[in-house]
Amino acid sequence: MPLKEKEISVTTLRRLPVYLHYLNTIKTTRKNISSATIAAAFGLNDVQVRKDLGAVSGSGRPKTGYDVEQLIGQIEYCLGYGSETKTILVGAGNLGKALLSYRGFSDYGLNIIAAFDSSEAVVGTLINEKPVLPLGDIEVVCLNKNIKLGIITTPVEFAQETCDRLISCGIKAIWNFAPTILKAPEHVLIENENLASSLAILSKHLREGYSEENV
Amino acid sequence: MPLKEKEISVTTLRRLPVYLHYLNTIKTTRKNISSATIAAAFGLNDVQVRKDLGAVSGSGRPKTGYDVEQLIGQIEYCLGYGSETKTILVGAGNLGKALLSYRGFSDYGLNIIAAFDSSEAVVGTLINEKPVLPLGDIEVVCLNKNIKLGIITTPVEFAQETCDRLISCGIKAIWNFAPTILKAPEHVLIENENLASSLAILSKHLREGYSEENV
Repeated sequence: MPLKEKEISVTTLRRLPVYLHYLNTIKTTRKNISSATIAAAFGLNDVQVRKDLGAVSGSGRPKTGYDVEQLIGQIEYCLGYGSETKTILVGAGNLGKALLSYRGFSDYGLNIIAAFDSSEAVVGTLINEKPVLPLGDIEVVCLNKNIKLGIITTPVEFAQETCDRLISCGIKAIWNFAPTILKAPEHVLIENENLASSLAILSKHLREGYSEENV
Repeated sequence: MPLKEKEISVTTLRRLPVYLHYLNTIKTTRKNISSATIAAAFGLNDVQVRKDLGAVSGSGRPKTGYDVEQLIGQIEYCLGYGSETKTILVGAGNLGKALLSYRGFSDYGLNIIAAFDSSEAVVGTLINEKPVLPLGDIEVVCLNKNIKLGIITTPVEFAQETCDRLISCGIKAIWNFAPTILKAPEHVLIENENLASSLAILSKHLREGYSEENV
């Protein structure tokens, strides 16, 4: 891997999928695009966009800007979209079922190969063609399939033990949807998707944030 | 509203639901708790936890710490859990259906009263007892029910027009699940839940982040 890939910041990484989608929507109509045009499309600062794109590509050519197809290829390579990431999901409740049923993940190279749950009502069933297996099978599936990414959608009281268990099976990154803070060794990345926290921000804004508008 | 409520930072606000859940799990066994105990439970810094709790409560009493029941009440009040926030959702595809079916939202006072979609296949149906209505009904429902919060789960190419439409109906906060950056006036809060961005972070870590561990 070229050294510069390591230098991409988390905030840049969060914006790249957004740029990528935009570039894919315009690629049939445009051959080149400037960072200023992309910046304007998203209401972002041009300098920021140039910095983001500079991390995956060279700088755009004066006047013509970036070659759209080439830039798409470079972002996709950076995001690893060509490769497939196999993952498992623990906790096939409402949210887990929702993620299992979501067909958008394959666009990003994510393939949930199995789900795990303790409930007899759901173990043995298929959700969107993915098998729901008993918790006891976690170790054998992770090790045999060399799984490195796990999704946690368990009730919050089981989230930490699930996290520990996945790490002991060689998992290196966890996408956590349980509303808690998970403890993990430094080499394991925990990405939190805390819906309750998002709701707290929104709800606070509604009760106070725009009050200057109201009488 | 007391002035101090306005001073709560976004990062504190994101942690409050996490503390709240923890306090609810221990309230039957403990009357008091110190910030240090809470900090240890989540691997956080004690000073940080004390600052967070100080924003919604006074400081804990020396030796005994915080009264658990009282602290629960104060956090719930701050997060507005006693009140109900009515919301609508636009885009009843896989992800939209998933959110409509998720029963955890009511814990946070969120009530999705209706969904909207353009597809004849889904309009007229009920998802988790919530009606799916045609897009043309957005205005009348928002205005009649005085809706201030909207959830966007449309395909990305319709996200901005949906956002504009909701704002014109008086919506003040938007929970956006479409992988794009929405433009909105300053008084409208956009909270992004970008699954593609989260996946980019996780995938990058898997390909590079823990390489020092491997041979």
